[in-house]
Amino acid sequence: MDPEGVSKAFVEHYYSTFDTNRSALSNLYQEPSMLTFEGQKVQGSQNIVNKLTSLPFQQCKHSITTVDCQPSGPAAGMLVFVSGNLQLAGEQHALKFSQMFHLMPTPQGSFYVYNDIFRLNYA
Amino acid sequence: MDPEGVSKAFVEHYYSTFDTNRSALSNLYQEPSMLTFEGQKVQGSQNIVNKLTSLPFQQCKHSITTVDCQPSGPAAGMLVFVSGNLQLAGEQHALKFSQMFHLMPTPQGSFYVYNDIFRLNYA
Repeated sequence: MDPEGVSKAFVEHYYSTFDTNRSALSNLYQEPSMLTFEGQKVQGSQNIVNKLTSLPFQQCKHSITTVDCQPSGPAAGMLVFVSGNLQLAGEQHALKFSQMFHLMPTPQGSFYVYNDIFRLNYA
Repeated sequence: MDPEGVSKAFVEHYYSTFDTNRSALSNLYQEPSMLTFEGQKVQGSQNIVNKLTSLPFQQCKHSITTVDCQPSGPAAGMLVFVSGNLQLAGEQHALKFSQMFHLMPTPQGSFYVYNDIFRLNYA
């Protein structure tokens, strides 16, 4: 496994799905998954997608600035740390954000998101 | 254990140590610890502290804006996600940063930093 390649592919897939078909993100989470979005905590795939699809904007476009990854320890997980810009439809300025994902392996050889923490970086 | 309390206490201890006696941060890392600092990867307590003490600034002051935490899975670790400002001596403007720590328990009932990823958020 190439951790850098896996994390970059995950990040591209995650944000392109977010920007085009947000409800399809449910495939990337499972029941134990946790999301902390701007300090609000949600657990479970359905609750997380309900949160993400109810955010007060429809169209958006993520642009990635940096992706860092590290193995997370004995459970063969991977930490992915992202910084970038989020452009909302109708807004003049993009918002800067940082987000971290903890990816855990599935029995099928893929990964799901176990931890997800998102923060806007206000200027 | 109160995860919010532990993570806030860790963050305060980490940055006050960073700002007053950077070399003492070696106590918070161990041999398997990993640091990715602005994309540069370093492993092991001594290498990490060598990296942190050789950064091209002496005096600095971290101010914390947000701290989020989540349990990281079966190994009883904890993920801590921080955003804040970094003021360097002699610089007019503070730098915004984001940083994540993956804390792992020690046999003594404390924690050490297993993963550490740091990024400046350029305006």
